[in-house]
Amino acid sequence: MFFTDGRYEQQAGLEVQGSKVAVVRKPPLAAAGEWLAANAKKLGMKTLGIEAEHLTVAEHSRLTKALPSGLRLRAAPPLVEQARMIKDAEEIEQLRAAVLLGASLFDVILGAIRPGVKETEVAAELEYAARRAGADGMSFETIIASGSRSALPHGRASEAAIPASGFVVCDFGVILAGYCSDMTRTVRVGRAGPKMRWIYEAVREAQRTALETVRAGVSTGEVDRSARKVLHSNGLGRNFTHSTGHGVGLEIHEAPRLAAGQKDVLQPGMVITIEPGAYIPGVGGVRIEDMVVVTERGCQILTPTGKELITI
Amino acid sequence: MFFTDGRYEQQAGLEVQGSKVAVVRKPPLAAAGEWLAANAKKLGMKTLGIEAEHLTVAEHSRLTKALPSGLRLRAAPPLVEQARMIKDAEEIEQLRAAVLLGASLFDVILGAIRPGVKETEVAAELEYAARRAGADGMSFETIIASGSRSALPHGRASEAAIPASGFVVCDFGVILAGYCSDMTRTVRVGRAGPKMRWIYEAVREAQRTALETVRAGVSTGEVDRSARKVLHSNGLGRNFTHSTGHGVGLEIHEAPRLAAGQKDVLQPGMVITIEPGAYIPGVGGVRIEDMVVVTERGCQILTPTGKELITI
Repeated sequence: MFFTDGRYEQQAGLEVQGSKVAVVRKPPLAAAGEWLAANAKKLGMKTLGIEAEHLTVAEHSRLTKALPSGLRLRAAPPLVEQARMIKDAEEIEQLRAAVLLGASLFDVILGAIRPGVKETEVAAELEYAARRAGADGMSFETIIASGSRSALPHGRASEAAIPASGFVVCDFGVILAGYCSDMTRTVRVGRAGPKMRWIYEAVREAQRTALETVRAGVSTGEVDRSARKVLHSNGLGRNFTHSTGHGVGLEIHEAPRLAAGQKDVLQPGMVITIEPGAYIPGVGGVRIEDMVVVTERGCQILTPTGKELITI
Repeated sequence: MFFTDGRYEQQAGLEVQGSKVAVVRKPPLAAAGEWLAANAKKLGMKTLGIEAEHLTVAEHSRLTKALPSGLRLRAAPPLVEQARMIKDAEEIEQLRAAVLLGASLFDVILGAIRPGVKETEVAAELEYAARRAGADGMSFETIIASGSRSALPHGRASEAAIPASGFVVCDFGVILAGYCSDMTRTVRVGRAGPKMRWIYEAVREAQRTALETVRAGVSTGEVDRSARKVLHSNGLGRNFTHSTGHGVGLEIHEAPRLAAGQKDVLQPGMVITIEPGAYIPGVGGVRIEDMVVVTERGCQILTPTGKELITI
């Protein structure tokens, strides 16, 4: 049974398959509880699986109160998340199309970035071009982080003006036919001195090394460690403050996580990001990110964009 | 204590007040559990309030396992949600600024809508103008639902082309300095016949009646009923398939809900939407929505845009 309210009646009719649809006036979970109270016994239901990572404590409590005695709730294994980790051929083509559309917008960013332009103006040009190109929307809030703000790993585009000199971290993605893209490039405004070039090249090397480590059978923690090792050997280990990547699909963040100590093993058909970075507080930062498909022998890089340092 | 990870270290330093900040490598909730295990006893903590509407069952279970014996979790009352229901003078000015920016974009929509243009193209123009005008972003996914799609109350802008004749429901909002706007206008492409004009006027009358019902001391259910009554008396009761409104603030949907049977009482300083609609499956729909501030004697309408039927 699929429970929804009147707002989604027509959409449910078009999209829900393999399930009855109940359009209800109460909150759908309350309606589901009532339906279970009326039907669980005659259907011989004794245990009901819930998605513990998604149901809130309050929802769980309300559902429990609505249930008949003899029916208990139990956390189901993450079946949907696990099934979604491996993308089939059609999904990979959808993701490839999303990545290509996303990557085509990098030229728009390069055309918009110049000293004095606000970060939000760059985001405006990018998002306008995405819509014009047929994107359903952006897959997350666009990050355009310039100058010292580039040291904020999640520096969403702000009213700050791009300074005459500094890095600009551009992290953005589109949604196309439901599938998300995700990429990051860091460009330079004004000439980069030797230290800044060295940081850029260290991140680029870490990203290349991580890409070379990706292969079916390797653990996600091992990929993370390979990127971290390069940055560590450049004295930037403490400046890489986030994980190396994550799965992408219908959601922008899906399993697996590529982080320190993670033991999930890469499998063919997983689509993941590889995105190490290094951030010097108050000065600036660099991140480079591609999306890749895991294969038996390595990976196929979906993002077609070059990674040499572009100076504007 | 405020627990976060390395991505937000600098932002937390800038934004968190009145609390210590712990930047941790583990998931913040796991780190909080460890901190509690080490400190709860000496601080004499026996009961820990959780936000049951936000914490998932899985998070609750992991946190419980990490806690020392003698410390128990208990659902806290929705203190934050309740405090946020009433906006202070400064917040009302922020919301007014967001609403005015949002409303200024309606002209952009009117300029973009014409037969053959894709709904996503209209959304593109709107969102581009929003960014250019300084919006942080959109407060929800833009709804541009034309022709028979206007009968979908939540018809996000699609690849569908606007037909030569029909309604176009335009429901959109911006985020400005963190605060959300939300408005809906329904325009007509091609001449509206008598039945379509009548549906439009019935919704407009329902919206006017609900606005006249808003006043401190009145229940949210009463406002909902007043709108529903007008549509019912026009034979459209069953075509009004959603609630009449909701609170708006830092989030696009906040307390209170204006829905059938709700008993929350309106108080001065609440900022809510009033948005009845009527939808004829396969044919089309109409929704009209303003944002208002509840006052002692009625309400102040923030949305400055007219409501006469505009034909393009």
